[in-house]
Amino acid sequence: MPHSRDRLTDPRFAAAVEDLLESYVSHGGINHIEGHNLPSQETVHAVIRELEAVLFPGYYEAQRLGRRNARYVIGERCARIYQTLAQEVAKSLEHTARCDTAGDELDAPEAQSRAETIVMELLEALPRIREVLHEDAAAAEAGDPAARSIVEVLLAYPSVRAIGTYRVAHFLHEKRVPLIPRMMTEYVHSRTGIDIHPGATIGPGLFIDHGTGVVIGETARLGKRCKIYQGVTLGALSVEKHGEAGWTPRQRHPTLEDNVTVYAGATILGGRTVIGEGSVIGGNVWLTRSVPPGTKVQIEPPYLVYKSRGGEPVKEPIDYVI
Amino acid sequence: MPHSRDRLTDPRFAAAVEDLLESYVSHGGINHIEGHNLPSQETVHAVIRELEAVLFPGYYEAQRLGRRNARYVIGERCARIYQTLAQEVAKSLEHTARCDTAGDELDAPEAQSRAETIVMELLEALPRIREVLHEDAAAAEAGDPAARSIVEVLLAYPSVRAIGTYRVAHFLHEKRVPLIPRMMTEYVHSRTGIDIHPGATIGPGLFIDHGTGVVIGETARLGKRCKIYQGVTLGALSVEKHGEAGWTPRQRHPTLEDNVTVYAGATILGGRTVIGEGSVIGGNVWLTRSVPPGTKVQIEPPYLVYKSRGGEPVKEPIDYVI
Amino acid sequence: MPHSRDRLTDPRFAAAVEDLLESYVSHGGINHIEGHNLPSQETVHAVIRELEAVLFPGYYEAQRLGRRNARYVIGERCARIYQTLAQEVAKSLEHTARCDTAGDELDAPEAQSRAETIVMELLEALPRIREVLHEDAAAAEAGDPAARSIVEVLLAYPSVRAIGTYRVAHFLHEKRVPLIPRMMTEYVHSRTGIDIHPGATIGPGLFIDHGTGVVIGETARLGKRCKIYQGVTLGALSVEKHGEAGWTPRQRHPTLEDNVTVYAGATILGGRTVIGEGSVIGGNVWLTRSVPPGTKVQIEPPYLVYKSRGGEPVKEPIDYVI
Repeated sequence: MPHSRDRLTDPRFAAAVEDLLESYVSHGGINHIEGHNLPSQETVHAVIRELEAVLFPGYYEAQRLGRRNARYVIGERCARIYQTLAQEVAKSLEHTARCDTAGDELDAPEAQSRAETIVMELLEALPRIREVLHEDAAAAEAGDPAARSIVEVLLAYPSVRAIGTYRVAHFLHEKRVPLIPRMMTEYVHSRTGIDIHPGATIGPGLFIDHGTGVVIGETARLGKRCKIYQGVTLGALSVEKHGEAGWTPRQRHPTLEDNVTVYAGATILGGRTVIGEGSVIGGNVWLTRSVPPGTKVQIEPPYLVYKSRGGEPVKEPIDYVI
Repeated sequence: MPHSRDRLTDPRFAAAVEDLLESYVSHGGINHIEGHNLPSQETVHAVIRELEAVLFPGYYEAQRLGRRNARYVIGERCARIYQTLAQEVAKSLEHTARCDTAGDELDAPEAQSRAETIVMELLEALPRIREVLHEDAAAAEAGDPAARSIVEVLLAYPSVRAIGTYRVAHFLHEKRVPLIPRMMTEYVHSRTGIDIHPGATIGPGLFIDHGTGVVIGETARLGKRCKIYQGVTLGALSVEKHGEAGWTPRQRHPTLEDNVTVYAGATILGGRTVIGEGSVIGGNVWLTRSVPPGTKVQIEPPYLVYKSRGGEPVKEPIDYVI
Repeated sequence: MPHSRDRLTDPRFAAAVEDLLESYVSHGGINHIEGHNLPSQETVHAVIRELEAVLFPGYYEAQRLGRRNARYVIGERCARIYQTLAQEVAKSLEHTARCDTAGDELDAPEAQSRAETIVMELLEALPRIREVLHEDAAAAEAGDPAARSIVEVLLAYPSVRAIGTYRVAHFLHEKRVPLIPRMMTEYVHSRTGIDIHPGATIGPGLFIDHGTGVVIGETARLGKRCKIYQGVTLGALSVEKHGEAGWTPRQRHPTLEDNVTVYAGATILGGRTVIGEGSVIGGNVWLTRSVPPGTKVQIEPPYLVYKSRGGEPVKEPIDYVI
């Protein structure tokens, strides 16, 4: 058998490459050849890191920030965000205009110009976003008995960074930027296990503890100072497609009013489900209808079967505390 | 106290290093010194990214792909996959032959040659794998109301990339390659929270929404067009080891026939558990036995205890909808 | 509309940067300007990778390790760990002393000296930590029917690496190092979905299978040879803050005695909850009180509602096996 160098001049290798190229023609959709540019995942991820460095300056960069150099460091970062993000937004606007048969034509300079306007608006919105993130950070610090300081929350908790990226993505989603907002929140999902759709509307002061497995759907609405633990789903009851007959973009995911707490593993489903202000939803609760303000909902757990060594199984209920 | 440079010439530092080296002798197993080469995680991860670039060309690389350059770009990538993956497969074949006392001897050139044959077969199989991945992508696009296009599914959903790596890992697992397939799927697990054992058998058109916490066991079998949500476990009931007395490599994990949907948090266990064609398993269901085709299974949730502010606790059942 | 280069000299861009700088003054806490240095996430993550390379030598580095070069390679790594980790620990000691009004003053040389002593003690403790990790690895190999060897466990399972970082972080936590231990375990959480607080006390021989969604709280105590599956929470019942009136740093999270197994999705809560030696807690169990040694606890699942195609819904209980 020839060694590997020879193998590459082997007709079998050449045939494998030709078959693969042929499959790009016969199975389109999952390849993108001779197409316009798509937004780049790598660039979008880099932009998120730049955005974190201006949202939470002094926390994640190696460079030490003082009053003297801050203007230059931050100005330069904003310029980089402006140029790279506008380019990616322009690509996604162009791509979507091309695919959307019902939509208007959009030439490249027009896409670039619209993209620049949107990203300029994002830069202008950053102070307001920081105001809200400050409330998110304070909520995290107050909400976890193990947290010692806001510094610890920013350096060692996933919550505030995940919500920070969601808040930027939500801004772009509101400006009707396609693709990029979801790429941003999926990056966070990959790093933290927290999956927030950029379409969700979330008030200030959210704290997501631990976070792994949290899913917050596209049309969910959360009030101020809500608190959510790992494994919580705010999901939809039925599955209908955009564009399907009879489909209207109504709310498919639940509403949490202000000061709602949802403990680990609880599932709340449906667009007409409203959890009233100040309610507490216990761990593992499965809820598909509304509850009034100030309600505590907890599951009455099924009897547990205890089997002690050598003895008969004993059934008894377990004391349950939220 | 001396400053840190001095500390390194400190006898205490030298003694700490000696004690550590000594511990490599006294506690083997978790070190690998004077051994043959093991497959490299870093290289295996790099190969996955190269494979994604030929499975989904034009989506994740910076380089723009056109008909003119595609042959060269793809050919070069395939050559790199061939050489680097064959090397890692050869290392894993050699390692396993050395450890398996019952197995045959395997010298380095023979391992390299076997590895090259397997990787050539993988390259030849890529068009068929793409055919299946095309169905997975279409299922994702059809299955999520929030998804706007296959482009969005590929750029901003974990499902198709996770399944893509699983499908390559499963091919290598079928060829009895040790270590590498599990290293590949564990890489995906780390990035997505989706843990699919390469031994599982999965038909085309699988969609895994959100995905965090999904576990699909080694001997699970899934038919065509199944749909699985976050937190679903397809697991084993009992734990017996390979090589233990009485152990036969029978199926330990469940079978889902075609068109089965499993909602978030459901757990299905056991090798004799068969979920009939078209069945829908509701959220949080815990299932350890078979159900016939077309069955809907849902949990009747325990009564919920509501405590309104100031009022008495009220127990009432909750309307439940899958 | 001017093109993007012009935009950056646009007064609107300049105003956006000024507003952002202004927000750093008006919303402190989530920025850190003109402050002392904080520990660097990037450096802490790099130290973890160096530590893994001396805890599990030969597994994750490209460099092949033999008896001849081991002393130099390992010695050099230990020197790098010593210098970089001591620097980060010194920063975190300084930061905390500055913030803690009740605490003593701590000047930079004193912080550096304390940090060096602690890191030297860590280096000296590595052989003992490896002894325990060897038991963790053996437990993983024995505990998963799909695992073929300790090599596979180290290359393709998250369990041992996650626990390894926890054990180092726990050592530093015991030495009262602030920030760094949580930064270390959060890095592991991000890569594996396993969230172990460095304050938890965990005996040798722990195996965490799959792991996504596991949460082990700050004051949890686990005996020897425990086994935990994905989605298990060992959590607190009530939420009180450090420093709040009446708060004492008592145990808020449960105790598992030796040889306890906790299956997927189970939740065990409360500092007075003790799970007796050898007990088995079934999947999805929600437990807030103690059980004696040798107890099996399993949920008696609610009746399931089956709807066969065209037929009436039938309620029936499901056979249940742990």
